[in-house]
Amino acid sequence: MRNIKLLLQYEGTRYQGWQRQMAFDNTIQGKLEALLGRMCGEAIEVIGSGRTDAGVHARGQVANFHTSSSMPLEEMLTYMNTYLPRDIAVTDISEAAPRFHSRLNACGKCYRYYVINSRIPNVFWHRYAIEVPEELDMEAMKRAAGYLLGEHDFKAFTSAKKGKKSTVRRIDRIEIVKKEDLISFTFVGNGFLYHMIRILMGTLLEVGKGERSVESMEEVIVSMNREKAGALVPAKGLTLMEVFY
Amino acid sequence: MRNIKLLLQYEGTRYQGWQRQMAFDNTIQGKLEALLGRMCGEAIEVIGSGRTDAGVHARGQVANFHTSSSMPLEEMLTYMNTYLPRDIAVTDISEAAPRFHSRLNACGKCYRYYVINSRIPNVFWHRYAIEVPEELDMEAMKRAAGYLLGEHDFKAFTSAKKGKKSTVRRIDRIEIVKKEDLISFTFVGNGFLYHMIRILMGTLLEVGKGERSVESMEEVIVSMNREKAGALVPAKGLTLMEVFY
Repeated sequence: MRNIKLLLQYEGTRYQGWQRQMAFDNTIQGKLEALLGRMCGEAIEVIGSGRTDAGVHARGQVANFHTSSSMPLEEMLTYMNTYLPRDIAVTDISEAAPRFHSRLNACGKCYRYYVINSRIPNVFWHRYAIEVPEELDMEAMKRAAGYLLGEHDFKAFTSAKKGKKSTVRRIDRIEIVKKEDLISFTFVGNGFLYHMIRILMGTLLEVGKGERSVESMEEVIVSMNREKAGALVPAKGLTLMEVFY
Repeated sequence: MRNIKLLLQYEGTRYQGWQRQMAFDNTIQGKLEALLGRMCGEAIEVIGSGRTDAGVHARGQVANFHTSSSMPLEEMLTYMNTYLPRDIAVTDISEAAPRFHSRLNACGKCYRYYVINSRIPNVFWHRYAIEVPEELDMEAMKRAAGYLLGEHDFKAFTSAKKGKKSTVRRIDRIEIVKKEDLISFTFVGNGFLYHMIRILMGTLLEVGKGERSVESMEEVIVSMNREKAGALVPAKGLTLMEVFY
């Protein structure tokens, strides 16, 4: 059996997210499995580095699948990009080690969240960014982000139901960069909980608008209480940029 | 009567172009006139700086309209951006001199054409760029573009039917810039004929692929024969960037 690794790009707008839900669904995983099944002539399970929610985009999602097909990689790449919908693309393909597992071997991820900070809409960004018309205090958001760096229990920043799984994660870097009206928030860490970045973003934006203090970030973390954190912001502003191994 | 000037952005994908065609059509001008009519409570004619074809985008289209409405500019801006479809936006609004005319007063335009030069599709650019998988000789295209600069009769580069109108135009600048897989071709001139940039692009790409010589550009210009020029490339790669007054 070969183990094939894929680098994927998708615009999440039209999809119900990464994870397959039923036989004829509208998910990225479902679309890929249906296509790869036809390409390989056997049932294929695609393993992603992690789920992305409905509406979330990816520029560097990683996935792998096992197959007994002998089709050359170049041919697979052409086949997939010919038959995939225009909003999903395979940007790289390679043979992986037999034990390589996209999810279990991932040691970190980079996500980016885009905000158009203007009361004027931008038609070229409306699928990939949210619009925030209020003035945002860049320095306050950057200082607030500083509290999130390092290893913390991020229980306050997830919509996941109470469970036995650890909610401890490490954030290595948060970069907030403004170019004209576009603000990008880049998060790098060893893993992110369900809805974590979208709740972190909601909280940072409340700091930026002056609705909560910079110092309140620490209280939210320590509280481990979802209600203390900010609102869940829309999925469309979020893009999975890179998965690290 | 007030004369109101608008700066407009639109994604042309869903539209039949700028120019109104009938009462209930799907054009940018038609959408704007219907909305402005409701806003002002009177029939409104919107004058654009020029037509853009079906599928062509704009980041800086200019238009103006006359109205007896006394609604403040700020309120108009908010009204329009609230009720316009998400792929059309008004990015600026101002009071213009009574005699200002978007089309007649325009003295130049800047257009940009985007090419994804890769055999790998890019899902975030597929609405705004065409894909050219072949290797492109950047230096050859730049030298070929040099022949186009200055004032010429561009009859060979238009789909317009034979008529009495002058086909002489002046191109002041052509910039070809490559950033990773994305090549942008920027054209600045005093005006462009029907399909002119898309035929110039088709011709330049043929030079880039080595299908025609750099020097053949001069012959094409002199021939004034549409059949000597290259193919008409798709509309989706073209964006009207700016109109000069």
